[in-house]
Amino acid sequence: MVVLGIDPGSRIAGWGVVEEKGNTLKALGYGTIKTPTTIKELPARLGHIFHEFESLIQKYSPDEIAVENVFFAENAKSALVLGQARAAAILPFVRVGLPVGEYTALQIKKATTGQGRAEKSQVAKMVCRILGIKETPKPADITDALAIAICHIHSAPFLKRATKV
Amino acid sequence: MVVLGIDPGSRIAGWGVVEEKGNTLKALGYGTIKTPTTIKELPARLGHIFHEFESLIQKYSPDEIAVENVFFAENAKSALVLGQARAAAILPFVRVGLPVGEYTALQIKKATTGQGRAEKSQVAKMVCRILGIKETPKPADITDALAIAICHIHSAPFLKRATKV
Repeated sequence: MVVLGIDPGSRIAGWGVVEEKGNTLKALGYGTIKTPTTIKELPARLGHIFHEFESLIQKYSPDEIAVENVFFAENAKSALVLGQARAAAILPFVRVGLPVGEYTALQIKKATTGQGRAEKSQVAKMVCRILGIKETPKPADITDALAIAICHIHSAPFLKRATKV
Repeated sequence: MVVLGIDPGSRIAGWGVVEEKGNTLKALGYGTIKTPTTIKELPARLGHIFHEFESLIQKYSPDEIAVENVFFAENAKSALVLGQARAAAILPFVRVGLPVGEYTALQIKKATTGQGRAEKSQVAKMVCRILGIKETPKPADITDALAIAICHIHSAPFLKRATKV
């Protein structure tokens, strides 16, 4: 199974593709999608995010995607922008029928470090250890996205079993 | 010019298509896109909104779309949901390169009633008068969407002239 994890954002979004083969997890690719400040209008910025994420479908053929579930933001204005950026990141995949797993920050931290209150640097360290990545990718949006993909792979079998019962 | 106005929402979204021919404006169609409560997961709800709005492209071949610019919401949580629903409504059009006009509630009310502080019912009444609609469509999401399309048609020539100077 190939899972694409997404850490959405309006200025910068992280992504990471993790493959599960037997008992091992491997990173097939990772990076960020930056929306240049020269693109001023919000609809055009959303279009940029949509097209960039859409291009990852052909490149990595993910089976499923996973994204952090966000409930809080600084204020309603920034929440409106973040919400739109999140939708622009996941809709290319939803549009073609790929399943989406949503996880809270607590679940993601727990799945990678064993602790719900772990620091970002601890998450990054564990992500690299789990995936055998030697040099920690920067910025943290990338390791966060990889952590979300790992969380999905760890949780998905249980969720599927649970819904079947 | 054919303009599709959108009043986005996560449970219900209004839409209205207005054609400008010479000096007259005509409604080509209008309606709502409801997302059934049986669709529980947010990504699936966004997918529903995206596909429903996408189907309007083939049906009406709009040249441009217009949408209300939202800055406020009850709280960050509802803003995150509204933001995602708004992106799901406009992205089908942004994806294929259609221009998007964004207007504040004040601009929309002013363009239809002449008053920035007009009531929703006044907006609905003026929209029907401008477009020659005999029976006021319900709910107000529809007349709001038609008002946004009218606002765009009234504003667009001036905006274009302004950016050319």
